[in-house]
Amino acid sequence: MFNKAVPIRTCSRWRKPEMQESVFAVIMAGGRGTRFWPLSRRDRPKQFLRVTPGGTLIQNTVARIEPVIPADRVLIVLGEDQRQLASQQLPDLPHTNFIVEPVGRNTAPAIGLASRVILERDPDAVMVVLPADHVIDDEDDFRQVLCAAATAASRSDVLVVLGIRPDRPETGYGYIRPGGLWEIEAGRQFLKVERFAEKPSREDAAAYVEQGDLWNSGMFIWRASAIRDRLRIHMPALHAALDDLFADRNGAGRARRLRDLYPRLEAVSIDYGVMEKAREVVVLPCEFGWNDVGSWSSLAALWQKDDSDNAVLGQATTVNSRGCVVHSGDRLVALVDMQNVIVIDTPDAVLICPTSSDQKVRDLVHLLAISSLDRHL
Amino acid sequence: MFNKAVPIRTCSRWRKPEMQESVFAVIMAGGRGTRFWPLSRRDRPKQFLRVTPGGTLIQNTVARIEPVIPADRVLIVLGEDQRQLASQQLPDLPHTNFIVEPVGRNTAPAIGLASRVILERDPDAVMVVLPADHVIDDEDDFRQVLCAAATAASRSDVLVVLGIRPDRPETGYGYIRPGGLWEIEAGRQFLKVERFAEKPSREDAAAYVEQGDLWNSGMFIWRASAIRDRLRIHMPALHAALDDLFADRNGAGRARRLRDLYPRLEAVSIDYGVMEKAREVVVLPCEFGWNDVGSWSSLAALWQKDDSDNAVLGQATTVNSRGCVVHSGDRLVALVDMQNVIVIDTPDAVLICPTSSDQKVRDLVHLLAISSLDRHL
Repeated sequence: MFNKAVPIRTCSRWRKPEMQESVFAVIMAGGRGTRFWPLSRRDRPKQFLRVTPGGTLIQNTVARIEPVIPADRVLIVLGEDQRQLASQQLPDLPHTNFIVEPVGRNTAPAIGLASRVILERDPDAVMVVLPADHVIDDEDDFRQVLCAAATAASRSDVLVVLGIRPDRPETGYGYIRPGGLWEIEAGRQFLKVERFAEKPSREDAAAYVEQGDLWNSGMFIWRASAIRDRLRIHMPALHAALDDLFADRNGAGRARRLRDLYPRLEAVSIDYGVMEKAREVVVLPCEFGWNDVGSWSSLAALWQKDDSDNAVLGQATTVNSRGCVVHSGDRLVALVDMQNVIVIDTPDAVLICPTSSDQKVRDLVHLLAISSLDRHL
Repeated sequence: MFNKAVPIRTCSRWRKPEMQESVFAVIMAGGRGTRFWPLSRRDRPKQFLRVTPGGTLIQNTVARIEPVIPADRVLIVLGEDQRQLASQQLPDLPHTNFIVEPVGRNTAPAIGLASRVILERDPDAVMVVLPADHVIDDEDDFRQVLCAAATAASRSDVLVVLGIRPDRPETGYGYIRPGGLWEIEAGRQFLKVERFAEKPSREDAAAYVEQGDLWNSGMFIWRASAIRDRLRIHMPALHAALDDLFADRNGAGRARRLRDLYPRLEAVSIDYGVMEKAREVVVLPCEFGWNDVGSWSSLAALWQKDDSDNAVLGQATTVNSRGCVVHSGDRLVALVDMQNVIVIDTPDAVLICPTSSDQKVRDLVHLLAISSLDRHL
C-alpha cells in the first residue's frame, strides 16, 4: 500500500520536484469520536473505522496522500491506547513515525511536538497537517492543492490553511474571512486572512456564508520552522517546554520527560493559540468536495440512498420509512413508519435517535461514562 | 408445578365439588403471533415467550387454572411444529393431552376436535376454552368465575362466554351486547346475549362502549355435548367430519384420517360459526383485569414504567425520550430524543416502529416472508 514510486502524473502542477523530499505529513489521529458511539468506542475511535468505501478513515487518509507524500514521511500523532490499532492498520509506516501523546492536549501541543520531530529530520521541511478522518471527493485535485500549498509555503514563513466553500450555514465548523490576494501558485489564489471565527450561532453562520466566508478545514501547510517560530511568539510556554524536551537527545530520556511534561501543557487548539493571532496567515479556497465526517448525518451523506431517502450501510428492511440512516452488521434492522431516525446497530449496543439529534450522542456517551454501563464505551 | 391437590380455599364459591372431576380446560395454543416479531418467530410464537412475570404466557395460563383444573384435565390444541416447545414448557402435562392440528383452521374445528376428545373421556364433561396468551390481574377472581360458569353450564345446554367490561373503544376485539338476566350463580349475573359484533370501526367501537357492550374475551364454558350439538345444527359439515373421524377407535388410523381430513375443513371461528347463530348463549360480565396481549403496546402496559413513561424490559438507556417501549436481551438499547417508539431487540433482528404502528408489524412479517430475508421469520 505504501512506499510505491511517486507517480508524477498525479501531481501535474508540481513545479519543483526537488522539494518533494522535504514535505512531511502530520496526521492528527488522537480524536475520540464520541459522536459515533456505539460504532466508535473508547479503544476504537472513528478514524479507525471502515465507514466509507476503501479502508478505514485513517487508511484512506494515508493512501490519499501517498502519491505525493510517501509513508516514510507520514507522521501520526495519536494516544497510547490507539497505537496498536494504528500499527495494525498502517503496517507500512515506520514505528518511529508514530508520535504518541501521553494524554490528549488539543492540537497546538500535538502540532508543536510534530514540528520538532520533523525539524530534527530536516530543518527546511514543509509540514502538511491533516485530520485523520476527513473524506475528500476529488483526490487528484486535493493532491494538487497540497503541492501548490507546499510550494508556496516552502518559499516563506507563511501559514497556509485550506478553506472550504460552504454549501450550508453549518454551526459545527469555524469560519475564515478571506481578504486580498497574497500570491498565485500553480494557478491557485492564496488569499490573506481577515479574521477567524469560532463555531458560530446559526444566525452568524448564515451571515458568514452570505459574506463569502470559508469553512476552516483544519488542514494546514507551513514550514516546520515557521510554526516553531510562531509558537515562540504566541505560545511561549509550549515553545519553552518543547525546547527543553528536545534538548534531550536520548530517546528513553525524552520519552520519560514527555510523560512528565505533556499533562502539564495547556490544552489549546492551534486555531486559538496561533492562527487567530499570527501575521502572514493565508487561506487557499478549495473545492475538492470535503466532508469532515463529524456526525452520523454527515457520514450518511456519503452512502447510497434508496428511493425513500434512506441511507443504509448493512442489512435493513424499511416499510413506509423515509430519511433514515441505518448502520448494521449481521443483524436485520427493520423499520416500520419511521421518519428521519438514525439506527446504529453493533454487537453489544444499538443507538436510536432522530437525525437532528446526532450531535447529542456525545451527551449519551457522557451519561454512560458516569453510569454502571461504561463497559459499553 | 402441576398435579398438586386442589386447594379448596382458592375457590370458595365452588358449590358442587362433585363436579370438579368433569371439568376440562382446552387451551388454544395454535396462534402464530406475527405481531410480536422479531421476538416471536415461526417456530416460537408469542404464547411460548416469557414476556410477563412468571413463566411463558402458556405456562402462566396453565398455572393460573391449576388450582381448579389439574394438569391431567388440561388439553392443549396446537400445531405440529409447536409440539416440542409445548412439551418442554409443560413437562407435567400427559402427552395425550396435546391435540395436534395438521394445519391451522381457526377456532371452530379446533374446539370441535377438542370437544370430541373430551366426550370420549367423559360424556358429561364441562369444557372451559381459554386462549393461551391472555394475562389476568386477579387470578383468584378469575378462578371463581370459571367455577361459577362451569356450575351454571353443567346444569343445562347453555353456551357461556366471558365478557370483559371495556375501558376504551378498542377496535381489535369483538363486542357482545348483553340483554336480560338469565341466571345468578355464586352471586354472579349471567346475562342473555342480544348480539355479537365483529371487530368494529372506531366509530362503532365508541358507540358500543357507550351502550354498555362487553368485549368478547374468547373464553367459553359449556358442556362438551352442548357444543357438539350446536355444531351439528350450525356447522353440519364439521360435525359430520368429526363423527367420521371419531368412529375410528384406532389411534394410528385416526391420526392418519385427521391429517387427511383437517386441511379440507372450513377455517371458521367459533364466534362466527356458532356463537352468533346459536340459541341459549349467555355472557358473564367479568372484571378480573384482562389483557389479551395482542400487540407490543398492550404487552408493555403490563411492564413497569420509568418517570418518562418508558416501558423497558431488559437493558436500555434513555436520554430525553418519552413513552417508548423497549424489549432487549443482553445488548444495550440507547434512545436519544425519541418519543413513542417501540424497539424490540433480538440476537438476529431489531424492530423499530412508532407505538401507534404496532399493528403493522404483521405487514413487515409478510414482507419478509416473500423476500430473501425469510430466515428471520
